[in-house]
Amino acid sequence: MANIKDIAKMAGVSVTTVSRVLNNQPYVSAEKKDAVRRAIENSNYQPNINAVHLSRGKTFLIGVVVPFSNHPYFGLLIEGIANEALKNNYKLVLFQTNYEESREIEALTMLKYKQIDALIICSRICEWDIINDHVSYGPIILCEDARGRKVSSTFIDHYKSFSKALEYLYQRGHKKIGYCIGRRTGANSQQRETAYKDFLMKFNERLEENFIFLECFNFEDGERVVERLINMSNPPSALLVSSDQVAAGILTCCKELNILVPDELALMGFDNQPIAKIMNITTLEVPLIEIGRRLYIQAMDNTTISHDEIQVKLIERLTV
Amino acid sequence: MANIKDIAKMAGVSVTTVSRVLNNQPYVSAEKKDAVRRAIENSNYQPNINAVHLSRGKTFLIGVVVPFSNHPYFGLLIEGIANEALKNNYKLVLFQTNYEESREIEALTMLKYKQIDALIICSRICEWDIINDHVSYGPIILCEDARGRKVSSTFIDHYKSFSKALEYLYQRGHKKIGYCIGRRTGANSQQRETAYKDFLMKFNERLEENFIFLECFNFEDGERVVERLINMSNPPSALLVSSDQVAAGILTCCKELNILVPDELALMGFDNQPIAKIMNITTLEVPLIEIGRRLYIQAMDNTTISHDEIQVKLIERLTV
Repeated sequence: MANIKDIAKMAGVSVTTVSRVLNNQPYVSAEKKDAVRRAIENSNYQPNINAVHLSRGKTFLIGVVVPFSNHPYFGLLIEGIANEALKNNYKLVLFQTNYEESREIEALTMLKYKQIDALIICSRICEWDIINDHVSYGPIILCEDARGRKVSSTFIDHYKSFSKALEYLYQRGHKKIGYCIGRRTGANSQQRETAYKDFLMKFNERLEENFIFLECFNFEDGERVVERLINMSNPPSALLVSSDQVAAGILTCCKELNILVPDELALMGFDNQPIAKIMNITTLEVPLIEIGRRLYIQAMDNTTISHDEIQVKLIERLTV
Repeated sequence: MANIKDIAKMAGVSVTTVSRVLNNQPYVSAEKKDAVRRAIENSNYQPNINAVHLSRGKTFLIGVVVPFSNHPYFGLLIEGIANEALKNNYKLVLFQTNYEESREIEALTMLKYKQIDALIICSRICEWDIINDHVSYGPIILCEDARGRKVSSTFIDHYKSFSKALEYLYQRGHKKIGYCIGRRTGANSQQRETAYKDFLMKFNERLEENFIFLECFNFEDGERVVERLINMSNPPSALLVSSDQVAAGILTCCKELNILVPDELALMGFDNQPIAKIMNITTLEVPLIEIGRRLYIQAMDNTTISHDEIQVKLIERLTV
């Protein structure tokens, strides 16, 4: 069976050129590419790339941990990571965890066993000690504030963002403000809860536990929120909603039930997804594709730990 | 350095058991698992899983080709594939092509070089001869009608579905029917176009080229459709929209511009995404998670070529 040297000889090029063609890398002339491809066709050469990677210690695979694949928030993050990875001939290995810890550990284990070159965790479930156990095996990058930790991160300061949004609503006359989030236990949600409590304390408002709506991830979760609202004797006058999708779902249900937005219920979303633009939802813009791009760049850096804080921007529209 | 036999000896278990634990496979007692993990911790054993896979000829990776990661249609397909893969300890390698042919060829090349065990193409760009050149390297599964081809497929008969939807609109009194699709050149779109032309011929209606709206993928594309509609002197009275997202975008813009749905414009979506339910959009249900599940099962079958036709279901709501 022909080997890479035979191919190089047949094609009249260097072994390096053959390797570049096989790995789809740039800087090879069209003529040389053709010559290599013809030589490969005429021989029975069939490289086992896993063996190539083994000798090189690189897989050109990057792991990405997300709880769901079918959510626009994670969709945009993946899109940002994938677009940058594409430029560098890296492929994404997707770990959909459904927020099960064992799935995240599997991803960390793949990093340990060198099946992927780096791991981006878009939404973490594992405790820090498990992450720490794996930092020596390759870059682990988080999409949450990991300052002071042994991993790189690109993040939004959710305490600051939530405080900014709450104060904006307060300035617009709202004192009874509730909020909607996904899972309560996530690092980002905890920052938001702290911001909420500090806000209430600052303005001498009482914490109403039923102003907090949990497990709000998708458009359809908005229905549940509105059902709860209409059964409340003293409902909030404004809702801070950690996802534009959920805000859009709430707005749609309000329109059906003739609940006036913002007069009877003000709504503020997060992310500035396309749906927020079309439905004129006031929101905090989070540049998710840019965050994805930075997460990828950090993942490719084997030597430095860095922390990129991304600023959010208030987009005033018609729901507050 | 310790090898797998040393670990087995230290743990007092068989090599097979160590292998099962390393690969996170079932049927190992908690005691044995612990013993193996302790032995690994006490040794300096660090398996290179790529070497293990090399000897075994399996990667436990399955490739999935999608044009975009951030679209609910592909999100649900990926979710269906991922949920089934999770159960079997398979991981997904995501190839986001942005509809560039070279990206799809990269995925096929990874199959050729045994970096993935199988490849699911959710939306194909390559010509059939390129696909055919790769069928000998491993299972390639398509999400389009591939009957008569050398690859397995799970698919909707888009000719039948589109015809069904068009006749439904016709029965409801609509003679001027337009449609919105993504790219015109895709296999599914071509089936739809044929169904549309056959429908017009059957009912002696003239083809109005400007009743066809292309490049409609997302919610925000609905805005463009409505802009074009309001500038038409003789607009269609009904639109068949190949994506609920786009239908939802159109409906939202119609509401803003006080265009009455369905009286002035009837809308029929595709997929029955959550947004269609909430916005009461009449649609054809496509069970995307189930399709994803079947695509995975076909991908794991190395020996048989099969073709699963999935039926769509008309969901009557308020937009027709």
